[in-house]
Amino acid sequence: MTVIRDFSHLHCDLSPITDSSPYEVRRAQELNNLLGLKGSTDATDMICDLHNTTSNMGLTLIRYTSSDWVTLHICKYLQTKITKVPVRVLVLDVPISDAHNLESVSKHGFTLEIGPQPHGVVRADIYIIMKEAVDLTIDWIHKFNSGTVFEGGDVEAFKFIKSVDYPRDPETRTLTAAIHPQLQDRDFCLLKQGDPLFFKFSGETVKYEEEETLHPFFINEAAYYEKGIAFHLGKKLTLKIPTVQVQKD
Amino acid sequence: MTVIRDFSHLHCDLSPITDSSPYEVRRAQELNNLLGLKGSTDATDMICDLHNTTSNMGLTLIRYTSSDWVTLHICKYLQTKITKVPVRVLVLDVPISDAHNLESVSKHGFTLEIGPQPHGVVRADIYIIMKEAVDLTIDWIHKFNSGTVFEGGDVEAFKFIKSVDYPRDPETRTLTAAIHPQLQDRDFCLLKQGDPLFFKFSGETVKYEEEETLHPFFINEAAYYEKGIAFHLGKKLTLKIPTVQVQKD
Repeated sequence: MTVIRDFSHLHCDLSPITDSSPYEVRRAQELNNLLGLKGSTDATDMICDLHNTTSNMGLTLIRYTSSDWVTLHICKYLQTKITKVPVRVLVLDVPISDAHNLESVSKHGFTLEIGPQPHGVVRADIYIIMKEAVDLTIDWIHKFNSGTVFEGGDVEAFKFIKSVDYPRDPETRTLTAAIHPQLQDRDFCLLKQGDPLFFKFSGETVKYEEEETLHPFFINEAAYYEKGIAFHLGKKLTLKIPTVQVQKD
Repeated sequence: MTVIRDFSHLHCDLSPITDSSPYEVRRAQELNNLLGLKGSTDATDMICDLHNTTSNMGLTLIRYTSSDWVTLHICKYLQTKITKVPVRVLVLDVPISDAHNLESVSKHGFTLEIGPQPHGVVRADIYIIMKEAVDLTIDWIHKFNSGTVFEGGDVEAFKFIKSVDYPRDPETRTLTAAIHPQLQDRDFCLLKQGDPLFFKFSGETVKYEEEETLHPFFINEAAYYEKGIAFHLGKKLTLKIPTVQVQKD
């Protein structure tokens, strides 16, 4: 197991590296050479990219495709073992060429996202759950490699649909509202027409106007202010996974 | 009322400003000239310096001296009006020359500290309480200036005693532990001998060894890691305040 202490997203710009290439692009290509190549048969079997967030995301396994049964089986396994926080799967369903996170370099990897934890702070409760999740993921791999049969079935997942920005002043682009107290910390709740989204600094409430019920997540993540994201919206899916057992030689 | 959008501490280095003076020193002297001079009869009557923290500090009024009845009367007033979070007074009891926060420039000012809120995040619940505290402080000033009598009595306060650092590797100085889950978010609790302080990454617990029972605060504040502070310890005091009424000309 290789531990890569690099939590930045992997922007795999494959243009030639020059002295003026930004550090992130250079590091992305180094990691791709070390652990990939992305999309090739030589790529690492699995990378877990460990992230934390100010959002109340519990423990969320994020994968760029809904068709990877390894992530889904590991999620199911973690759900039976971890009870202190909810364990969920989030799928992005984008082509591999548009998947920029570190785990997309590997064949069956995922981001392990955990929160809430402020940036620049270590919370022991969060640390302990993340360690448990990593230990259990390694457990699952050992069991799978030793021939254990993992039963298939249904796995609930959330699929990314779109992002929502904060209300902003049309001229200055500064924020005119914060996440509404009734939405704050309620990641993955069901959002219905009329539910409060934002608390305007003028005192008014901005409500959810759409007819489709969706699930918000990454609510009030510190790093997303500059990206123009107050939260993402997703749809709940039920995915089927096969019963699996390793093929022995 | 002047709102100064500057949340940095005021390090009042009074040596002459040169082109190479750091921004903070230059800004400190500008603010002292604008709002002081600190310690002089011309100084502003009151400055409220608005801060937020990742620690679960509720609403805490911080003053560099225990002898300022204005801060204590306002705290008492806020305690009767704000019920969503605890309202406390923290006194540092340092000479004015060692008091570096912005409010020390004024005659009767205080820091209004609120938490928990991650750095880089606006939480509406925290924003709403801070706004209420500022509005009520202005209310109190108006009432006082209009001749209202404010009854004296006892006010509970916490007095800063000392700071405690994280356990660190003796050679590399990197952290070997985080705040213990049983201490996290329990700012101002009573700490007794044997109570857990830190969760070591090796799994052990570091306990409070001292005989004196004290109260921890600013537990796990993000900005204090680099200052070598895991939390501060304080002592509970009861301060007496006089009945006050403005003297009309």
